[in-house]
Amino acid sequence: MSENIVECVPNFSEGRNKTVIAEIAAAIPSDLPLKLIDIHSDPDHNRSVFTILGSPEAIEEAAFLLIRKAAEKINLDQHQGCHPRIGAADVVPFVPLVNASMQDCICIARRLAKRVGEELRIPAFLYGQAAVLAEHRDLSMIRKGEYEKLKERIGTDTAHTPDFGPAVIGPAGATVIGARDFLIAFNIFLNSSDIRVARMIAKAIRESSGGLKSVKALGMLVNGQAQISMNLTNFRETSLRTVFESVKAEAAAMGVFPNHSELVGCLPEAAIEGIDPETILLHDFSPQKILETHLNEIFT
Amino acid sequence: MSENIVECVPNFSEGRNKTVIAEIAAAIPSDLPLKLIDIHSDPDHNRSVFTILGSPEAIEEAAFLLIRKAAEKINLDQHQGCHPRIGAADVVPFVPLVNASMQDCICIARRLAKRVGEELRIPAFLYGQAAVLAEHRDLSMIRKGEYEKLKERIGTDTAHTPDFGPAVIGPAGATVIGARDFLIAFNIFLNSSDIRVARMIAKAIRESSGGLKSVKALGMLVNGQAQISMNLTNFRETSLRTVFESVKAEAAAMGVFPNHSELVGCLPEAAIEGIDPETILLHDFSPQKILETHLNEIFT
Repeated sequence: MSENIVECVPNFSEGRNKTVIAEIAAAIPSDLPLKLIDIHSDPDHNRSVFTILGSPEAIEEAAFLLIRKAAEKINLDQHQGCHPRIGAADVVPFVPLVNASMQDCICIARRLAKRVGEELRIPAFLYGQAAVLAEHRDLSMIRKGEYEKLKERIGTDTAHTPDFGPAVIGPAGATVIGARDFLIAFNIFLNSSDIRVARMIAKAIRESSGGLKSVKALGMLVNGQAQISMNLTNFRETSLRTVFESVKAEAAAMGVFPNHSELVGCLPEAAIEGIDPETILLHDFSPQKILETHLNEIFT
Repeated sequence: MSENIVECVPNFSEGRNKTVIAEIAAAIPSDLPLKLIDIHSDPDHNRSVFTILGSPEAIEEAAFLLIRKAAEKINLDQHQGCHPRIGAADVVPFVPLVNASMQDCICIARRLAKRVGEELRIPAFLYGQAAVLAEHRDLSMIRKGEYEKLKERIGTDTAHTPDFGPAVIGPAGATVIGARDFLIAFNIFLNSSDIRVARMIAKAIRESSGGLKSVKALGMLVNGQAQISMNLTNFRETSLRTVFESVKAEAAAMGVFPNHSELVGCLPEAAIEGIDPETILLHDFSPQKILETHLNEIFT
């Protein structure tokens, strides 16, 4: 495998209407060297996360077509969901995967943001490693107040001034485009409907409050069930098993226990090597969840 | 709710390529009184099951458009999967749901089969309650030998002679269209990779071998895991809980246990009433899995 491969993980603000999700996914051209390897839709979040692998050029073009289709199909004025969002195509990160650099992904993000702003007239913000403004580096700063507040705030301060496109919000909202390192999105559900339990466990295990290295964690309530929603930014530093065992131990101390886990998107083979998925309650795990399974199919 | 509602549960021979699945789903018109409420894709089976609710007219039209799109996108000569299949759109059953009769569904199935045969030139078989020939009543008789054998056998005996369309098979294969009663498709996975265990449990619980009333069951191996794949044709006679407890008891006798369950498609609210989904290991259960959740949205 000597080809260049970039990952794109666009998040769209529709997790309930399967026809709309399909219409958006169908905007991906079938004749380019890329593959849509996963769609994770959550009705409570009312949000779908796509995972696409492909050549940098193909991925850039597909991302534009997806953003355009999402803007046609999703009206933020009618959107309700428990995950923060500001746009139809809410966040579009690019990740260097094989023979691609962070700089490649930053260039893709910036070219795409310009095109989205100018051609689609959708306000586009550059975040993460692709950020031009320090106030845009952190996604949560841009998204604070969400779509509803952004309508009033847009253009009034640096954090809410788009890098490209008009400082005016239509029903497609705004899109945040960026570059970041690879991460594993791993969620553990508990046999509890108490969000406080989830929040306490999240606080105990996340790096920012003295917990596990390279782990970000939030406590949420999804479909009435307490969930620890995590990002593992370096699975060699803190493995899936360590994360699972830590959550389990913290949960046990509060008299609850994990009853299933889920991956949003995919992971590298090395991240699950030596781990039986059942032991970390990943019941739906299959080879389709392993990035390497798909790599050889992209350039055929 | 006084409108007429029919369910259609088409099965397509693609469970891996998400773009193809999305392209097929996007063939459903968004301006008709219907809703695509579930897509269940299985990479091992290499098969996707759609669940659509809507007015009889809308459902009939959508089914035609889906069959046409699947025939364009799926080539059976390149299809591999562990579930029996003979066509791109493999089976298309219609089910009376609200203010619709079995006779309505039989008429839809027969009109649609004629159109598929004549307009798309795809061999169409009528099965179940819509069968014209006794040899087509049972789906497994038509599907025996699958696509590969059907290429040679088609037209040579009654079981393999289509009701409409040419007695010649192209890369889209043949489509089986019919009418049947509502059923709940419920699968239980075991902590075992031994298909014999699954087969023994299936045999112990299915009605045809003296087990539970209104339960059909098969033992399978899905993604390396033993699975009891079941149809509950009358949940008032045998409930989800009874089925789960029976499987659990049979499994315990062989030293194994269920580790998770899944629904393919949706169920009526009454079928889960009084049952905590977690107790039958339906970890992903959400209100989106309840038919009634969607009924009010169809005619808006």
